Amino acid sequence: MSSVPAQTSTATASAITVPVSLGDRAYDILVGRGLIETAGSRIAALGARAAAIVTDEHVGPLYAKAVSHSLEASGLRTSVVTLPPGEATKSYAGLERVCDAVLEAKIERGDLVVALGGGVIGDLAGFAAAAVRRGVRFVQVPTTLLSQVDSSVGGKTGINSRHGKNLVGAFHQPSLVLADTSLLDTLPAREMRAGYAEVAKYGLIDDVRFFAWCEANWKGIFDGGPERDEAVAQSCRAKAAVVVRDEHETGDRALLNLGHTFGHALERITRYDSTRLVHGEGVAIGLTLAFRFSAALGLCQLSDAERVESHLKSVGLPTRLSHVPGGCGTVDELLDAMAQDKKVKGGSLTFILARGIGQSFIAPGIEAEKVRTFLTSEIDAS
Amino acid sequence: MSSVPAQTSTATASAITVPVSLGDRAYDILVGRGLIETAGSRIAALGARAAAIVTDEHVGPLYAKAVSHSLEASGLRTSVVTLPPGEATKSYAGLERVCDAVLEAKIERGDLVVALGGGVIGDLAGFAAAAVRRGVRFVQVPTTLLSQVDSSVGGKTGINSRHGKNLVGAFHQPSLVLADTSLLDTLPAREMRAGYAEVAKYGLIDDVRFFAWCEANWKGIFDGGPERDEAVAQSCRAKAAVVVRDEHETGDRALLNLGHTFGHALERITRYDSTRLVHGEGVAIGLTLAFRFSAALGLCQLSDAERVESHLKSVGLPTRLSHVPGGCGTVDELLDAMAQDKKVKGGSLTFILARGIGQSFIAPGIEAEKVRTFLTSEIDAS
Repeated sequence: MSSVPAQTSTATASAITVPVSLGDRAYDILVGRGLIETAGSRIAALGARAAAIVTDEHVGPLYAKAVSHSLEASGLRTSVVTLPPGEATKSYAGLERVCDAVLEAKIERGDLVVALGGGVIGDLAGFAAAAVRRGVRFVQVPTTLLSQVDSSVGGKTGINSRHGKNLVGAFHQPSLVLADTSLLDTLPAREMRAGYAEVAKYGLIDDVRFFAWCEANWKGIFDGGPERDEAVAQSCRAKAAVVVRDEHETGDRALLNLGHTFGHALERITRYDSTRLVHGEGVAIGLTLAFRFSAALGLCQLSDAERVESHLKSVGLPTRLSHVPGGCGTVDELLDAMAQDKKVKGGSLTFILARGIGQSFIAPGIEAEKVRTFLTSEIDAS
Repeated sequence: MSSVPAQTSTATASAITVPVSLGDRAYDILVGRGLIETAGSRIAALGARAAAIVTDEHVGPLYAKAVSHSLEASGLRTSVVTLPPGEATKSYAGLERVCDAVLEAKIERGDLVVALGGGVIGDLAGFAAAAVRRGVRFVQVPTTLLSQVDSSVGGKTGINSRHGKNLVGAFHQPSLVLADTSLLDTLPAREMRAGYAEVAKYGLIDDVRFFAWCEANWKGIFDGGPERDEAVAQSCRAKAAVVVRDEHETGDRALLNLGHTFGHALERITRYDSTRLVHGEGVAIGLTLAFRFSAALGLCQLSDAERVESHLKSVGLPTRLSHVPGGCGTVDELLDAMAQDKKVKGGSLTFILARGIGQSFIAPGIEAEKVRTFLTSEIDAS
């Protein structure tokens, strides 16, 4: 496994192109090192005359200047709005602030919003772009591994409500995604691991070969080798394929929630306190539990669940309920937290389960009693 | 011209059906007396199990009970949220309140929001429906003439921003529109006249026969005769035809703005103070000015402009700048107010002009100097 130099950014940075074939909403995801310095020419090529960059106080100081210089060099009128970092920014107040800034910047229908940040900024800026003038275009420049492989692809945008996360928003596809993998060089190790849980998820859903590749190559992903670009690109390809089949999540797209029913419940129980648990850590535990639950139901081999857990553990991710700092709550609390999930239909629980690695499927109508029995044994075992 | 009894509502109320042929977003507009008492069976037929009624403090006390009883009688779980009346409700705070109420009511993707009110409620509830869970269905039950013939058809939803009206929102088509024309029996005369300006507009855009029919039949529309149902249905047909050609307002749909560039400027100058000017009154003046401007540019006969003005005057609508209570401002103020209009593209003004009654067209790139000369002569003449 070879590592590549951290600074190879040039205006001609090579990139892997992942097309998202959504008809008149089709767009490309570009993956590569140094892409943000090519943002100007790539965004100008979309025909915009102005761009409003939306970022946060963590990312802005690091990268907003590089992006705005690149945009201005390509003749785009450019503005920047910088928001507080963190989930609390995905609020009605945050929406108002971004919409006002975009209108202040006189962004018209042909122009663009540029979301420069992680999932919070992407979701918020994307929703603002969907809403301003009933829809202006936007470009995602995701700056975390999690947002590069998950939230920046697929067009789900939104804010949180007091009733739950992401409950208010829009399906609004970006016009371009620039996943600059060199930005991950400065990402804290914990955030890198958390994003990696979603990378591994794509193998677990329907691609056992990619999961095996991850088992063999994960160190290169973390070290910034060419494996990182390949892993991000392959994750985007996997997500794009699902999104193309089911843009508005009426069917197959739910597969992307593998590990998320348990994961969301744990996030809720830890009150979205990132000092205790971040999303990707919840997903890592959730992935392990989804396979252990599948094994308990006789759907897959316990050895599959053990292989999943072993890999996630090796990259340093938590995998069990007992790994939640401060505890995971009681079985009743966990069940309550799951029932609040918006993937509940008509009162019964929908899980994503698996018949093996790379063989996941949507399992609606799972009885609460079976979940209770499983969770009780998980808690007793720990 | 015969008048019909005001109370003929039955659960089998006959209705004129106007289909809006938007592919997988197709829906029907039903026009007739007594329709709200049939709301339950019609909405249940859409497959919803729950409905959240959104209304305001003027309309709610009059009609919310009739609608909710009808829904409950058809087995729908029903809730009502009642907002303050008036334009100020179309705000981020209003959006938050409606989204929260809809989530509180546990409206899932198969369920419905029912907008019971005028344009403010329709725009706000429609946007909330577009945003909650990234889109739930909604039904428009417009209670004013203006909303029955204009805002409830075509899927434009939104709220106001401090940068201007309707600048934040979504294109979200309703699943059904119930235009109960008996509700207009209690509408204040001034609101009835204001809505009528939009009815006449459809004739002026592209249907000289409908305009002539309006000239002959307008009293029946105001008195609640069968002419009212026919006028509402024909207006909806006209708007639907334009919306089907150009759902997202990239072209032809701008024709619906005939009279609105001047009208919006006057609303802005009177600070949306409804004691001075309501939207339809601004449109009435705007329609007259659009034809007078067209005549001044040599595009149509002055006699056409005189015919337009004569009809609008006969129903009691204002038609000239001098009719604006408190004054219309200076030429510079009017031009500034027009330049703020979101239909500005690349800095030049776009007007809807006419070569005659029923022969309107989109005229981009009109020089400000020509508008200045025209407005100066209009103000001097008054």
